[in-house]
Amino acid sequence: MEAKINQIAELINAEVQGNGEGVITHPGKIEDAGPGAITFFSNAKYEEYLYQTQATAIIVGKDFNPRKPVPTTLLKVENVYLALSILFEFFDENKVKIKGISPLASIHEGVEVPDSVYIGPFVHIEKGVMIGENCEIQSHVYIGTNVQIGNGVRIFPGVKVHADCRIGNAVTLHANAVIGSDGFGFARDSDGNYRKIPQIGNVVLKDNVDIGANTVVDRASMGSTIIEEGVKLDNLVQIAHNVVIGKNTVIAAQAGIAGSSQLGSNNQLGGQAGIAGHIKIGSENLISGQSGVMSDLGDNNRVFGSPAYSHLQFFKAFTVTKKLPEIEKRLAQLEKKVKNDTK
Amino acid sequence: MEAKINQIAELINAEVQGNGEGVITHPGKIEDAGPGAITFFSNAKYEEYLYQTQATAIIVGKDFNPRKPVPTTLLKVENVYLALSILFEFFDENKVKIKGISPLASIHEGVEVPDSVYIGPFVHIEKGVMIGENCEIQSHVYIGTNVQIGNGVRIFPGVKVHADCRIGNAVTLHANAVIGSDGFGFARDSDGNYRKIPQIGNVVLKDNVDIGANTVVDRASMGSTIIEEGVKLDNLVQIAHNVVIGKNTVIAAQAGIAGSSQLGSNNQLGGQAGIAGHIKIGSENLISGQSGVMSDLGDNNRVFGSPAYSHLQFFKAFTVTKKLPEIEKRLAQLEKKVKNDTK
Amino acid sequence: MEAKINQIAELINAEVQGNGEGVITHPGKIEDAGPGAITFFSNAKYEEYLYQTQATAIIVGKDFNPRKPVPTTLLKVENVYLALSILFEFFDENKVKIKGISPLASIHEGVEVPDSVYIGPFVHIEKGVMIGENCEIQSHVYIGTNVQIGNGVRIFPGVKVHADCRIGNAVTLHANAVIGSDGFGFARDSDGNYRKIPQIGNVVLKDNVDIGANTVVDRASMGSTIIEEGVKLDNLVQIAHNVVIGKNTVIAAQAGIAGSSQLGSNNQLGGQAGIAGHIKIGSENLISGQSGVMSDLGDNNRVFGSPAYSHLQFFKAFTVTKKLPEIEKRLAQLEKKVKNDTK
Repeated sequence: MEAKINQIAELINAEVQGNGEGVITHPGKIEDAGPGAITFFSNAKYEEYLYQTQATAIIVGKDFNPRKPVPTTLLKVENVYLALSILFEFFDENKVKIKGISPLASIHEGVEVPDSVYIGPFVHIEKGVMIGENCEIQSHVYIGTNVQIGNGVRIFPGVKVHADCRIGNAVTLHANAVIGSDGFGFARDSDGNYRKIPQIGNVVLKDNVDIGANTVVDRASMGSTIIEEGVKLDNLVQIAHNVVIGKNTVIAAQAGIAGSSQLGSNNQLGGQAGIAGHIKIGSENLISGQSGVMSDLGDNNRVFGSPAYSHLQFFKAFTVTKKLPEIEKRLAQLEKKVKNDTK
Repeated sequence: MEAKINQIAELINAEVQGNGEGVITHPGKIEDAGPGAITFFSNAKYEEYLYQTQATAIIVGKDFNPRKPVPTTLLKVENVYLALSILFEFFDENKVKIKGISPLASIHEGVEVPDSVYIGPFVHIEKGVMIGENCEIQSHVYIGTNVQIGNGVRIFPGVKVHADCRIGNAVTLHANAVIGSDGFGFARDSDGNYRKIPQIGNVVLKDNVDIGANTVVDRASMGSTIIEEGVKLDNLVQIAHNVVIGKNTVIAAQAGIAGSSQLGSNNQLGGQAGIAGHIKIGSENLISGQSGVMSDLGDNNRVFGSPAYSHLQFFKAFTVTKKLPEIEKRLAQLEKKVKNDTK
Repeated sequence: MEAKINQIAELINAEVQGNGEGVITHPGKIEDAGPGAITFFSNAKYEEYLYQTQATAIIVGKDFNPRKPVPTTLLKVENVYLALSILFEFFDENKVKIKGISPLASIHEGVEVPDSVYIGPFVHIEKGVMIGENCEIQSHVYIGTNVQIGNGVRIFPGVKVHADCRIGNAVTLHANAVIGSDGFGFARDSDGNYRKIPQIGNVVLKDNVDIGANTVVDRASMGSTIIEEGVKLDNLVQIAHNVVIGKNTVIAAQAGIAGSSQLGSNNQLGGQAGIAGHIKIGSENLISGQSGVMSDLGDNNRVFGSPAYSHLQFFKAFTVTKKLPEIEKRLAQLEKKVKNDTK
């Protein structure tokens, strides 16, 4: 796979500054990209590499003005990451479409599999499952009874999807993720023993949802756990029963949402963040890593801490917290002084 | 599946207030239950829905007195969640018992499988395994050598149970859980390299234990990691080697217990809580989400924070922490004032 | 498996204090070891058991001096855990080497499998995979195209290794771990929708790396996510794309490293710790459990808290934090007093 700079510029809608005739053979990281590579610059931490690179071309934001001469061709774009998304797709060797049903798969006889679909070895598909066009269901996947799967869905090895769940179009489920496991619902009897509350709901993943590796989305106790369109969940995330996550919300690894909580759209949760149960989070919030949101939250907040509150207030208080031993001493001295003064 | 209100009342031992002749066809959530549905009310947050519902019947606690007229039949019970447990079991369509051994399973020739057991495709069962009556071992499960499994055990797809572990009666293992993986034990040699300490113990899960999806319980370095009767672990929980968890303790998702720690009975751990290694936790403690318990704890405590201490004290201090920038200013002003006054 | 104390002493290079002729049949825990058992003492918490044990022998550090008479033979060693590592290997019944390829495995026809290798049932190995000598690939494992696996690698049931990853010699991958899943990379378009950035890099695991059960190591967006020699990751750990982890670093369960961060060698991370993205951590740091490192860190630090800072400073401040309600009161009293005094 190779292309001239000018061809790539056209692909990613970039303005070329410098020689557009160079040949690109692969993408590379700015720290170590050599001749033939196309790289990118976005995070200011890496600016020094920009002026030393041996790469054949660099993608930068259209408003970026280098402080020194850059020794290679610049491709100026509106949105660097969007350009990368297109560029990497161009160079992605794994994008070759596979098709066909492995003879080692176990598919219930009544299930119709479109010709455009790939089903890997050791896949087990139960009764009543419906599968759309152009899906890829890799090895060791389990699809429970009556699950419905849209078009263009990619299911990586080892994923388990339990009965009655609904998977929208263009959904991606990464390896060993579990969709539709039982919610954590028990009733305590008069002897103090826990008795299971059967979880008779399901999980609904809308279009363009991504679910990370080893992430778990529990089925609702009743009704549906709902992940709205465009939501992206990273690895090892926990979504409890009856949760609703609004459109284009992004949740980083190891974060968890407790039962019945509802999140609006366009929220961003950092890694290891937690949301308590039965609360409502509005839209457009930034919830920092390791934060714990324990009560309702409106829109457009940036929060930090456990329990979480205003990011700005948290860091103001944090600065003082570190000085507390000194503050305590100052207080004690003052008390002594005042006592002495007023004897 | 349908039933008259009076029949359901008998099933869940409820007192009927209103028309007992209505027909129930399904359970529903109080927010959106319509005609034919039976719903429930327990969390005060949802009280307003109670007065607007179109459901045919509502289960409530026997001591609940509505503040306004309720437009439907009330079923008053001792314990709402226990009633739900029975009700959902009645309506659970997945409870149909499956049996038989898939021809695609790989079972060591010496292993005896009772007729009442279901074994799904791509299950691999090693030598010396013993399996009780009425078990369900779903697809892609691995059972290592000499594992013993009691009666009525449900093992969901993708679970891995390593050699020598003991699974009690009526245990449930959710999808992709791992039981008996090696504990994290290494010895550092004089060159600074880590050398594995073989983990020669096992895991013992007593009766009525539930293990969540993608949860891991490590085998003991020596002896047993023990999960006592009735313990419920949610998803993505980590139980390290040599841990002992007492009866009816409940641990929410993403919590972790470090090596050799012992927990008594009836504890409740919130999501993402952590327990340090080699400590003892008594019984009946409430350990809040994201808390980190770093030293021994007696009985009947409620703790919060990392490191965790009294929940009450934590929140009193937390209230002041948020005001620290102002407190620091007040202190500085006072210092100035005292200095000036006493010049 | 049994041996005289003197034989074991030779094996672990110990000095015998007492009768060296006793016969050892198994290792045991100091709390409950009986006749025939060899046990060990290292953690001071367990010292009382030492003076009451019925074990036939006890391994202790060579500098340990008992405060009371010990009722059994002592084996004095340089490094107790290193001795255990050797001892447990001696008694490990599972160390029996298995070989051979299950007829139920699915291996691409071009892949050469050495005679010394074991491949379990329902393993799926794709095109272009290379496998070294003496490897063990257990049931339900997936190995993607062009993966290279060194010598003496153990892969436990359910592990998924994605295309192009490199696995060094003597690496161990525990059950249901995922290596090489896509990094969490998306570009937001002008409509606010996230578009996937294909992750075209891989994962490189160097020699002697251990990866815990259900742990996830994401492939690089470009280039490699690199886990250096001797690194040990516990269960449920998250390693994001483009991370580099230096030699002999040890990471406890449920910790997570965000994208592009680099850790030096010999670091120790406690359970549930988090490292933010795009930062650099030096070497020989102790990062306590549940801590969150949010900016660069040099060498030889011990840190705590979220955000993390000096362990010592944290605990000094923490002591005062707990007293904040009282401090606020003292400040208010002082303010009142000063006001009154200076009227």
